[in-house]
Amino acid sequence: MVVPCALPPASAWRPLVERALAEDLGSGDVTSNFTLPADLGLEAAVEARQELVVCGLEIAAAAFAAAGAPGPPVGFQATRRDGDRARAGEVLAWVDGRARTVLAAERTALNFLGRLCGVATLTRRFVEAVAGTGCEIVDTRKTLPGWRVLDKYAVAVGGGRNHRAGLHDAILIKDNHIAAAGGVAAAVKAARAGAPAHLWIQVEVESEEDAEAALDAGARSLLLDNRTPEELGGYVARFGDRALLEASGGVRLENVRAFAESGVHRVSVGALTHSAPNADVALEVRPPGVRA
Amino acid sequence: MVVPCALPPASAWRPLVERALAEDLGSGDVTSNFTLPADLGLEAAVEARQELVVCGLEIAAAAFAAAGAPGPPVGFQATRRDGDRARAGEVLAWVDGRARTVLAAERTALNFLGRLCGVATLTRRFVEAVAGTGCEIVDTRKTLPGWRVLDKYAVAVGGGRNHRAGLHDAILIKDNHIAAAGGVAAAVKAARAGAPAHLWIQVEVESEEDAEAALDAGARSLLLDNRTPEELGGYVARFGDRALLEASGGVRLENVRAFAESGVHRVSVGALTHSAPNADVALEVRPPGVRA
Amino acid sequence: MVVPCALPPASAWRPLVERALAEDLGSGDVTSNFTLPADLGLEAAVEARQELVVCGLEIAAAAFAAAGAPGPPVGFQATRRDGDRARAGEVLAWVDGRARTVLAAERTALNFLGRLCGVATLTRRFVEAVAGTGCEIVDTRKTLPGWRVLDKYAVAVGGGRNHRAGLHDAILIKDNHIAAAGGVAAAVKAARAGAPAHLWIQVEVESEEDAEAALDAGARSLLLDNRTPEELGGYVARFGDRALLEASGGVRLENVRAFAESGVHRVSVGALTHSAPNADVALEVRPPGVRA
Amino acid sequence: MVVPCALPPASAWRPLVERALAEDLGSGDVTSNFTLPADLGLEAAVEARQELVVCGLEIAAAAFAAAGAPGPPVGFQATRRDGDRARAGEVLAWVDGRARTVLAAERTALNFLGRLCGVATLTRRFVEAVAGTGCEIVDTRKTLPGWRVLDKYAVAVGGGRNHRAGLHDAILIKDNHIAAAGGVAAAVKAARAGAPAHLWIQVEVESEEDAEAALDAGARSLLLDNRTPEELGGYVARFGDRALLEASGGVRLENVRAFAESGVHRVSVGALTHSAPNADVALEVRPPGVRA
Amino acid sequence: MVVPCALPPASAWRPLVERALAEDLGSGDVTSNFTLPADLGLEAAVEARQELVVCGLEIAAAAFAAAGAPGPPVGFQATRRDGDRARAGEVLAWVDGRARTVLAAERTALNFLGRLCGVATLTRRFVEAVAGTGCEIVDTRKTLPGWRVLDKYAVAVGGGRNHRAGLHDAILIKDNHIAAAGGVAAAVKAARAGAPAHLWIQVEVESEEDAEAALDAGARSLLLDNRTPEELGGYVARFGDRALLEASGGVRLENVRAFAESGVHRVSVGALTHSAPNADVALEVRPPGVRA
Amino acid sequence: MVVPCALPPASAWRPLVERALAEDLGSGDVTSNFTLPADLGLEAAVEARQELVVCGLEIAAAAFAAAGAPGPPVGFQATRRDGDRARAGEVLAWVDGRARTVLAAERTALNFLGRLCGVATLTRRFVEAVAGTGCEIVDTRKTLPGWRVLDKYAVAVGGGRNHRAGLHDAILIKDNHIAAAGGVAAAVKAARAGAPAHLWIQVEVESEEDAEAALDAGARSLLLDNRTPEELGGYVARFGDRALLEASGGVRLENVRAFAESGVHRVSVGALTHSAPNADVALEVRPPGVRA
Repeated sequence: MVVPCALPPASAWRPLVERALAEDLGSGDVTSNFTLPADLGLEAAVEARQELVVCGLEIAAAAFAAAGAPGPPVGFQATRRDGDRARAGEVLAWVDGRARTVLAAERTALNFLGRLCGVATLTRRFVEAVAGTGCEIVDTRKTLPGWRVLDKYAVAVGGGRNHRAGLHDAILIKDNHIAAAGGVAAAVKAARAGAPAHLWIQVEVESEEDAEAALDAGARSLLLDNRTPEELGGYVARFGDRALLEASGGVRLENVRAFAESGVHRVSVGALTHSAPNADVALEVRPPGVRA
Repeated sequence: MVVPCALPPASAWRPLVERALAEDLGSGDVTSNFTLPADLGLEAAVEARQELVVCGLEIAAAAFAAAGAPGPPVGFQATRRDGDRARAGEVLAWVDGRARTVLAAERTALNFLGRLCGVATLTRRFVEAVAGTGCEIVDTRKTLPGWRVLDKYAVAVGGGRNHRAGLHDAILIKDNHIAAAGGVAAAVKAARAGAPAHLWIQVEVESEEDAEAALDAGARSLLLDNRTPEELGGYVARFGDRALLEASGGVRLENVRAFAESGVHRVSVGALTHSAPNADVALEVRPPGVRA
Repeated sequence: MVVPCALPPASAWRPLVERALAEDLGSGDVTSNFTLPADLGLEAAVEARQELVVCGLEIAAAAFAAAGAPGPPVGFQATRRDGDRARAGEVLAWVDGRARTVLAAERTALNFLGRLCGVATLTRRFVEAVAGTGCEIVDTRKTLPGWRVLDKYAVAVGGGRNHRAGLHDAILIKDNHIAAAGGVAAAVKAARAGAPAHLWIQVEVESEEDAEAALDAGARSLLLDNRTPEELGGYVARFGDRALLEASGGVRLENVRAFAESGVHRVSVGALTHSAPNADVALEVRPPGVRA
Repeated sequence: MVVPCALPPASAWRPLVERALAEDLGSGDVTSNFTLPADLGLEAAVEARQELVVCGLEIAAAAFAAAGAPGPPVGFQATRRDGDRARAGEVLAWVDGRARTVLAAERTALNFLGRLCGVATLTRRFVEAVAGTGCEIVDTRKTLPGWRVLDKYAVAVGGGRNHRAGLHDAILIKDNHIAAAGGVAAAVKAARAGAPAHLWIQVEVESEEDAEAALDAGARSLLLDNRTPEELGGYVARFGDRALLEASGGVRLENVRAFAESGVHRVSVGALTHSAPNADVALEVRPPGVRA
Repeated sequence: MVVPCALPPASAWRPLVERALAEDLGSGDVTSNFTLPADLGLEAAVEARQELVVCGLEIAAAAFAAAGAPGPPVGFQATRRDGDRARAGEVLAWVDGRARTVLAAERTALNFLGRLCGVATLTRRFVEAVAGTGCEIVDTRKTLPGWRVLDKYAVAVGGGRNHRAGLHDAILIKDNHIAAAGGVAAAVKAARAGAPAHLWIQVEVESEEDAEAALDAGARSLLLDNRTPEELGGYVARFGDRALLEASGGVRLENVRAFAESGVHRVSVGALTHSAPNADVALEVRPPGVRA
Repeated sequence: MVVPCALPPASAWRPLVERALAEDLGSGDVTSNFTLPADLGLEAAVEARQELVVCGLEIAAAAFAAAGAPGPPVGFQATRRDGDRARAGEVLAWVDGRARTVLAAERTALNFLGRLCGVATLTRRFVEAVAGTGCEIVDTRKTLPGWRVLDKYAVAVGGGRNHRAGLHDAILIKDNHIAAAGGVAAAVKAARAGAPAHLWIQVEVESEEDAEAALDAGARSLLLDNRTPEELGGYVARFGDRALLEASGGVRLENVRAFAESGVHRVSVGALTHSAPNADVALEVRPPGVRA
């Protein structure tokens, strides 16, 4: 699977890496500092312990790199790329450097990988569950606080598509906006008139009449929350070629295909980022020379 | 259940709240800005949508407070306390203020609550699963990067106990340290000799001989990873009154009681923080006056 | 003129206010500290010294507020709102507090106001120059480093519209992208296939053939750079009802109306933010009681 | 023209570069990410598009450098130095690296250069306008918030001299201080008595009597605001060899020479930093090998 | 003694207060959290335990204030002012609030007070040692890293005068500069020609010939390092009315008066800030109502 | 003396280095900028000017490294290691690079070294004063605000042992906790029941009865404040093999051995970090080639 996604800029995630290292290290690793010689070297493999979709190798590399300063850096040689599928036991990367440094960053690096591979892997399962239907799986804003760009990157690595990045880069009109504006048409028109032209307007609609009004007023997409596949089919028949139709609510791996087969263009799944279980990734110390 | 735990200092979590708000808000909420009058007020309830253990109300309050500045603050009135159990439909807090502000902070506040209630709720289930055995449930360092203090707070709110906060506040000697130091006894002695006296020494042991050596050298606790309850029972019989015994590895809700009944003092569970599903919490707008 | 724009979130501009105060104050105001009694009060008016469009009052208020901490806050009472037009001599706000605090923040507050009113005022002149044509004036990414959200806010306050906030919230395909992708159609299709659906695609085209290809492939807008009004007219006739047409390049107050009358939907003007002269705003100390 | 000025320490401007990159990049460059291969290289020239005084090359280099991390760095080879004069079409620097990185930093780097060359170029014009008079051109505190050290650096690069860096490094007594202290002499004496000895005292005076009092009390410089050249001449005759005389107010390129010829030692010009138009600088992609 | 000094702006010291609290609190005060009821109140006195010069009350207040957020603030009522002399046992301030908050901030607040009172007290002793000579005591740049503005504030509170704040706000030409510039006169002239006019030039001279050259070239002050009082007297006789003469090197409380009586205008003492012993300040819990 | 201590992670002290450089440099070194050629090189030795225990070489190196960016780095070659004893005149490290950069960082680097060597040297004197008694010297939380990890590192380098890092990593029950909890036993039991198991409990006791109660309830250490050596001997006889006994209060170099000879396991000394005089370290410029 070719994954056309790009790592977000370091400015968007490096502060999180630094915070993570600092919270684990505090004033220092008291175990290693008193049991390991300062110059002892160590070589280790980052391994998958379950089948998973790889995600986050450059973040892990950055964690190892940051832990070493101002001393010599940790070597990090990836053997897989983000988006690859790996089986249990496969090596994802080789790490070598001072033992104190490698062990200081180990848990932080693995915690990033566990989370990011977890999100990518769950996403891939949803994507595969709708394979062939033409329907896309998209994420939501139900990401972990502080993790927005990384969570969305992991969804993309898993083969999902990204919904808006936040409140700022697309318009999504919901019931409160509609009530305040005096109706669906009024809300869409107000947004159209006031907001920058490049911003997409999506409306969460409660009825086909509302959908009609939203599209007539200039909306580009409808959000259909908590509908059955049958209900969705009605919207597809009537609006499927006028707007991008997105279903949400109550979607699980077991039922996502039914949603997809309703003909909607995409299904958004909060669980991709709010409830993905960790993927099991570990660091295995290896005798020198094993890598070759 | 009385929960003797305290919210961590704001200095430890406010940067995460600020980062979370900034990543969602970016340059502003383009939907609300163009559909809601600037001075429109709104009153809403934060509600549980499933049975859960409440956690994170002060964090949520801080998110609403931060979103309003420099304008008028959002009112936040908690009706439950962290550690309370709530049923689906129960109101956890009332929020009122400018609609633009409340909606700007809504998703961030809910994302914090969903995560924190999720961890607390899962922890409570593990704690209840071992009720009556005297065994404690403890967390690990497998927390979400950036979330260490909050994740551990949620475990405590759920009734679990906290393992060390990081690499800095307790000594945990593992195989690499043992190999480098030249054996279990040597590693423990080196740590004992070099490290501050207030730091507890725990050793992950591979055999009863190692356990004997570790305790003789001054360790206070043994970590027993990937043992069956039967194997654990052997350690309990031999070392149960000399050291705190902790089991880990392969622990699930279905089998945790068997571990607990082996007699170990505590069981550590990475899944509490690395794989807790979100708890469903929502913001429901209410007509003015409903609260009374 | 009703200005439907909202102040960006404080999280996006408060760090700039703090940096600005710190760079002016350094270790303290050595003049006031040694000539003014610590508790001397002062009342002053923020005044326009030229005709201008008001912009930045809440930023100025934040500067005065920040300068006073941890002592008593400065009172700031705005008598105009952002977007209002003011004539020379009109009072925009009243300030009162400790003289040391007011004078410590004076230059910072005025520097913000001078810049923001300057951008808003220049924008208003462009907007008025195209009045009645239906053409809109939009900004560019040629904003002052560090000032993106404030500069764009000032454009909106002046009556202009905002182009994308940055590289992240809309797609703008230029010659390098086209060359790398293998043609206009290929570039647009690649963006359409890979990028999130909510992202608008604009293409900077060199010919009507390219325009045709871009729109057929799914672009929503054409950027027409360095064209004469006559050339623009040709695009308007052929594509004006299929895409949003934006002209740019060589636009000045003297010729902007000709561009607008070509029928393009909007004209983007870098000078709004990269070369707006400061508006003249000053702080005038007044005897107590004058305000009433 | 030899320019004896030094780039300010990176600690004083790097946060602004980082803020600028972050505000433009956000979660990433959606155009390049989906149209350019990740490993595509690019070589480009930074070019002057108008006659200008070069300023900011090291800042631009830092922007390109920061954008690439943690990937391979962008090469930046300056062909001019800050302070050089360049004609339209001249290359100021060569840039090469990954296309995605170069384009991600392009606008930020150019926005810095446009501003800094703009300030330096305008300053040079003022300096040349007073050539031969012995009068110096100095800046003010009317710099862009957040830009103090860079704006003042650009003035120096343009051949101007710097006034105080902020409220902390020199004393400038104005009417409010005089009123509070009980007269010019009292204010100067209070400052002289209380402030560190290394701090220069300048007084803005309203009359020759005040000037006399200020100098007698220990002031080193007089600020003469909103005086005609004739009035300035009177001060020069009476005080020119006792104090540094600085004129300000209403100074424009057209009339600055008249101020200078009055004999004052220097003229301060707020417009250097508050209203300098951008200098036109662009990035031109070049076929590989053109540079050689 | 009237102390004409002002607390530096909070922007210059609040980050240090926050860092100090965070390093002591970490993830929370484990003693108070588990032994004190959350709502237990406490009233306490900040007391001098030795004779001292009070310094830092507002810093201490800020520490207590910051520790309480987001809960109810700690009350802080100063009964002395910075610059006052206090005897052992005197109350400097009353504190009241939640016991957990007060105790969380106690050590941080006292550590600030201990240091700042210590510097102020030592400075006062030096000032008193030279009383009547007209000679001033000044500080140096040998302050504690991170503490520059606070250390210099404490010196001023103690009655000393401040030397330059850093490398940026005054010129101090030493041997390396002289060697590189080609002599004393050349170095002073280069500085005079290149540096902003408001910057004072001081030269560390090795001989009276150098002193002569420095003053002729425009220096305002001479730094005379490691001279005996007799040698200083020679400089005073020759240059005392042409320049500010500063002695330094080997100055102690026991010999400072001899330096002062040489007639130099001031003596700089690194020990004021690099080696001041802590002043003993403590927090004493009091029964409610004792204060009244 | 072999010192088994490790430099704290850079994340814990680099912000202090950056703050220190910024406060000294401000907008730049005005002396060097105008008297030294930009490319002039310089080689210098960091020298001890008194007998001292070396501490902080890597911090000093980091200061020189940070000052040079983005230009060429400063070379820093240590000739001693932290923990070594050096005599007056010995070279601790060689520095070479651009003169402007070396001199810009000189004072900051020396201020760090002066403080850290000062703390390490004073600690060593206390350690030597108790040599042969088996008693250890430990630090307290009376460290300089912002310096906790560095101060404690210097104590360890000096041969002392570290007490808890802060309020978070060990329990120390004092009179307020005891009063609130209802007695010594109740307080210890509450802490034992509520706090994480790895946290050591120490109790400051007022009597042998309290000591008995504390140990019976599970405390591991007793803090004996303001006792005479004779009184301490009583506690040693009764509790010396049941708990770690720590004496504090009124300890000076002259009397510390008497405390140690009482048989307590350790003596804590606040003066190590709150009142250590600076060690005299200087930078001496050397002719090129002298180092070889």
